[in-house]
Amino acid sequence: MSTVNTLGERKAIKLIIDRLERDPEELLGLGLDDAVAKETAGGQVLVAHTDMFAAGTDMPPGMSYRQAARKVVVANVSDLAAKGAKPLGLLFSWGLPSNLQEEAILDLAVGLNMGAREYETYVLGGDLGETTELTIAGTALGLTMKDRLIKRTGARPGDVLAVTGPMGLTAVGFKIILFGFEAPDEAVRVNVLNAVYMPRARLREGLALADVGAVSGGMDISDGLAVSLHQFSEASGVGMVVTDVPLSSQVLSFSEHHGLDPMNLALYEGGEEFELLLAVKPEKWREALEAVKRAGGDLHRIGYVTGRKGVLLKQPDGVFEEVEAKGWEHFRRFRK
Amino acid sequence: MSTVNTLGERKAIKLIIDRLERDPEELLGLGLDDAVAKETAGGQVLVAHTDMFAAGTDMPPGMSYRQAARKVVVANVSDLAAKGAKPLGLLFSWGLPSNLQEEAILDLAVGLNMGAREYETYVLGGDLGETTELTIAGTALGLTMKDRLIKRTGARPGDVLAVTGPMGLTAVGFKIILFGFEAPDEAVRVNVLNAVYMPRARLREGLALADVGAVSGGMDISDGLAVSLHQFSEASGVGMVVTDVPLSSQVLSFSEHHGLDPMNLALYEGGEEFELLLAVKPEKWREALEAVKRAGGDLHRIGYVTGRKGVLLKQPDGVFEEVEAKGWEHFRRFRK
Repeated sequence: MSTVNTLGERKAIKLIIDRLERDPEELLGLGLDDAVAKETAGGQVLVAHTDMFAAGTDMPPGMSYRQAARKVVVANVSDLAAKGAKPLGLLFSWGLPSNLQEEAILDLAVGLNMGAREYETYVLGGDLGETTELTIAGTALGLTMKDRLIKRTGARPGDVLAVTGPMGLTAVGFKIILFGFEAPDEAVRVNVLNAVYMPRARLREGLALADVGAVSGGMDISDGLAVSLHQFSEASGVGMVVTDVPLSSQVLSFSEHHGLDPMNLALYEGGEEFELLLAVKPEKWREALEAVKRAGGDLHRIGYVTGRKGVLLKQPDGVFEEVEAKGWEHFRRFRK
Repeated sequence: MSTVNTLGERKAIKLIIDRLERDPEELLGLGLDDAVAKETAGGQVLVAHTDMFAAGTDMPPGMSYRQAARKVVVANVSDLAAKGAKPLGLLFSWGLPSNLQEEAILDLAVGLNMGAREYETYVLGGDLGETTELTIAGTALGLTMKDRLIKRTGARPGDVLAVTGPMGLTAVGFKIILFGFEAPDEAVRVNVLNAVYMPRARLREGLALADVGAVSGGMDISDGLAVSLHQFSEASGVGMVVTDVPLSSQVLSFSEHHGLDPMNLALYEGGEEFELLLAVKPEKWREALEAVKRAGGDLHRIGYVTGRKGVLLKQPDGVFEEVEAKGWEHFRRFRK
């Protein structure tokens, strides 16, 4: 008989989803998108997302309680951002171990509040229980209009593929934090640790893009770029070709220092980067770029959407290489 | 330094709430009500509630995984019922221990679906994580209109105090399941175990009452009647006098068998009964009763609301006795 351990995260999710009846009025598809959405009235759509944080698997060594709680907020808000929904508020169910110190509880509360206010929203309420391991389930609620909702199923052949920021920082961060790699210098170290401990959600970017109606579809990148490309292309029934991935200077200098392939880091070894992956209508590319810039962000063209299924990486020499659907599974990520 | 263990649930909640900024647009008050509510558009209000279920504290011995998952749904839907909100959908964040069997996962999924369909709603989505203990955080989303929202703060002196069903069944159930008490006969045993393992939320009753605008305020009873009376009266800034509590025949025969005071059981030893506790406008009592009966339920008058703070029990001999604010705290309820 299989256990959670032998099944893995994705199979366990499939098992569960197969047992659930579908709400015919839900707009994004059970288990298919970053969030769920239902029309409330007059074309207004409620977008909701829930995210499970467990200290043993989601709290990398060196992360403070404040940072952990703030990250829970970021992970939840990021999924609203990916759907183009403005936060209406946040709810948290806390599972606290009986020996957790009062100071930790306070830091967690401060971190949640800090994260919420960063995205101009609030913690509306929650519930508390006792658990053997620190666990925080967050729920983000947001609103948008039905015709602005950004879906994973929306990418169309010919669309420009784009991301909202350089990739690979968390991949480098994990190498340093979890596997003891040396940082080439202190500036690199500070930057990549910051990407892991203080990620941010691309909310203003998502809202700006929804506003101008420039994207056909999108999602946030939380399990690595390669996995996200596969999920996005499968949900949309299209193929994707990656021609270029923006890499920050820190990723390049780390890769050079250790003789690693930076593209490999960016595609397969990142996680919780919370950049948005978007399919932009080609005729609206300029408008999309301007909207995101006005919102204080950036948009990097990384490739294009095709009608032929699969995800390919076009090498500088013009050769196409298959991008594998691999990344790390959520389970046992930081479990000792 | 205090820990979760020495603080207890209510103090830990207070610590957290004190660190959170308030959303000025939230309608029910952070930490004050069963749920949170925000206006979306045109007088429509989104009501949301989250509830933490951990196997160690919330799963009594003998409860199956299906029943546990269904109970998570019931606990969440009950809070929507108490606010007069119609379910829009449910979200669940699952924390699964790595050695949990596939069969248990399937049973949990079936239980969630069963519970959702019982209340004519759906599981819209969720998230999965690995935890050391089985943990399910549920979030219920519901809709109502602003002028129909039932609040804990609404009880007014002169209102009729009412509950939607007889009290004390789960108190007896816990005596049998947790403390090895003998049931007077098999029929009693079956009935009280059913109350613990298969509770139901009074959704139709809550919706019917919101429809006719007959209640000034209300809440669901999840931590025992005495605690709920105190929470309700404090939130509303009123006093409450209990003159009569409906007790089922099973509670009476169990009490007689063991020489226990049935009123004591009903007030202080129940939990997760999920009946609604309501303050009904006196001029609308008949209308409220009829609406609830049409919805297939019942409404029992248990006392009245007064202007003088405190919660009193009026004994059959006319003497008033103070009802203490005691029940059981959620923490370590069923922890071995």
